Amino acid sequence: MNRSIRSGILSLGLVVACCLALPRSVDAAPYQGLAEIIRTSAPGDWRTPDPENLLYLELDRGRVIIELAPDFAPQHVANLRTLARQRYFDGLAILRVQDNYVVQWGDPDEKNPRPVGAAKARLPAEFSRPSRGLAFDALPESDVYAPEVGFSGGFPAARDAVQGRAWLAHCYGMVGAGRDDDADSGGGTELYAVIGHAPRHLDRNVTLLGRVLQGMEWLASLPRGGGEMGFYEQPTERTPIRAMRVAADVEVARRTRIEVLRTDVPTFARVIEARRNRRDAWTKVPAGHIELCNVPLPVRVLP
Amino acid sequence: MNRSIRSGILSLGLVVACCLALPRSVDAAPYQGLAEIIRTSAPGDWRTPDPENLLYLELDRGRVIIELAPDFAPQHVANLRTLARQRYFDGLAILRVQDNYVVQWGDPDEKNPRPVGAAKARLPAEFSRPSRGLAFDALPESDVYAPEVGFSGGFPAARDAVQGRAWLAHCYGMVGAGRDDDADSGGGTELYAVIGHAPRHLDRNVTLLGRVLQGMEWLASLPRGGGEMGFYEQPTERTPIRAMRVAADVEVARRTRIEVLRTDVPTFARVIEARRNRRDAWTKVPAGHIELCNVPLPVRVLP
Repeated sequence: MNRSIRSGILSLGLVVACCLALPRSVDAAPYQGLAEIIRTSAPGDWRTPDPENLLYLELDRGRVIIELAPDFAPQHVANLRTLARQRYFDGLAILRVQDNYVVQWGDPDEKNPRPVGAAKARLPAEFSRPSRGLAFDALPESDVYAPEVGFSGGFPAARDAVQGRAWLAHCYGMVGAGRDDDADSGGGTELYAVIGHAPRHLDRNVTLLGRVLQGMEWLASLPRGGGEMGFYEQPTERTPIRAMRVAADVEVARRTRIEVLRTDVPTFARVIEARRNRRDAWTKVPAGHIELCNVPLPVRVLP
Repeated sequence: MNRSIRSGILSLGLVVACCLALPRSVDAAPYQGLAEIIRTSAPGDWRTPDPENLLYLELDRGRVIIELAPDFAPQHVANLRTLARQRYFDGLAILRVQDNYVVQWGDPDEKNPRPVGAAKARLPAEFSRPSRGLAFDALPESDVYAPEVGFSGGFPAARDAVQGRAWLAHCYGMVGAGRDDDADSGGGTELYAVIGHAPRHLDRNVTLLGRVLQGMEWLASLPRGGGEMGFYEQPTERTPIRAMRVAADVEVARRTRIEVLRTDVPTFARVIEARRNRRDAWTKVPAGHIELCNVPLPVRVLP
C-alpha cells in the first residue's frame, strides 16, 4: 500500500485528487473535496481565457501556457504581445533556474542583444495600480504581507484600502518581468516564473504580468543552475525556447482548449472552503484557515 | 545584461547571493545582505549536526542530506535509524512527484512489501508535542495558520500557548512520514519532502520528522508523475534509491562536512531582518514583514 499524503487538490493543472466523504450526519452536509466540486460544477463556473491574453512558451519538453494580466500590467502585456509577434523569444533560452525561487528566460547574449524592433526594451514599472475600478474578491483571511488579499480576474492579488492600491502576489506559477536596479529597467524581454515557496517580499518590487495556467512542471523540473543566483554556467545547460506565441496567432487546431474556474462564483468559494476545512477521512485537524498562495486555481484542458 | 530578480538569499543550500549596500547615511547603519552577514558571522554562530541525526539519501544524481528532528518525532526518528541500518531503503525508489506539492519515496511493491525487521511498520502519530521544555525562538510576525511561529533546533515550527502544544511546519524541504487514513498508520517506511509552496494545512495531520539541509534540488527537479496524486505510472519512471544511511554509519572520509546556522543567535536575527527589510539598491519597497517559510535557514558545506 502506498502510504501517502493526500493532496486533495492540485494548485495548477488538472484535478486528479481524492475526496473521501465522511459519513453523513444530521448536522453536517456531506463533505465534497475539490474533485467532487469540480465534477459537479456548472459550465458557467468556467471561463475560456481570451487567446490574445495567452502565451504559449514552447519547449522541447512541452508547452507552457501563460495567462496575461492586462488589468495589472497593460503596458508590459502589450509589449510582450509585440515581442512575441516579432518572434523575439524564438531561439532564446532558459538561462536561470534557482531552486525554491525562480526560472528565468530571455536573451543569453549580453554583448549583442537581440533587437526589440517595434517593442520597447524598457517600460515604466507597473508594480501596483489603483484599486478603484478593479474587480476584487477578497479572501476573508489574514496575510503576513498585505492588509487584504484575494483574487482579481483569476489572479492572486493584494489590496491596500488606505493607499487605494492593488497588486499581484508572487504565488507559485506567477510570471514577472526581470529588471535591473532601476525600477523602470524591465519591459518583458527577460521573464521569470516562481517555482518555489511564494517570495512575497518581491511584491510591489517587480512587474508581475501573468501566471502559468498549464505546463508548470516543465519549468519547475528543470535542472538547477550551478552559478550565482542559479544561472547556468555553460551555454549547453540552457533550455532552448522553440517559440513563444500569442495563442490568437496559433492556428485553432494547434491551440490548447483550456478553461479556468472563475474566482467570482460560489463554486470557487466552495473550493476555498474545501481546502480551508478538509473533512475527508484522512484529515484529523482541519486547518481552519487558508493562505492566499495555497488557494487552488483550478484549470482544465478539454480534449 | 541579464535582468534578474535578485534572490538576496537562498532558503536552502549555499549562499550565493548579492548584497548591494546603500550609501551610508547618518541615521542608518549600512545594509548587509545575507551573503555579507554570513561572511562576517562568527564560528560559534554555526552548529555541526549530530551525524546520528543526519540521513544521506543517495541517488544517482546526488546526495540528499536530511536532518532529523528527535525533539518532535522521537519514535519516528529512532525507527528511521533502525530502518536505515537494516538497509531497508536501499533499492527502493522515488514513487511520486506531484508538482508544487511533494516528492515521496518508499516501497513500490504493495503485494510483497519489504519486511521491516527490527523496525516497526506503524507508529503512534507524532503530529505535535507539549511545548513545555522545548526551546522555541519566536518569530515576531503573524501567521495565517498558527497562533505563534518560530524556530526550534533549526526547524520551522509553530506553537499554541493555550493548548500547550508545538509542532513542525510544512515549509519547503520539510520531510514527513506518509500514512493512510488512520493517524497511527505511518512509521517512516514511506517518506515525503515538500517541493512547492508550503502546504501548511498538513500541519498536525502528518508526522514531520526532519528537513532537507542539502541536495533539495535533486528532489525538486525530478520529472513529475503522470498518475493520480503524481505517482509514476510506469516502474521505469521511478528514481532508484541507491542507499539511505545514517551519516554516523558512513566512513568519515565520505561524509559531507555540513554546518547549519544556529537559529538562537543574534546573527540569525540579522538574517531575518535582512530579508524582512531588504535595503539593497534593487529593492524599492521593503516588505516590512516575513512569513515563517520565507525565512532562510543557511547551510554551508566545508571543503
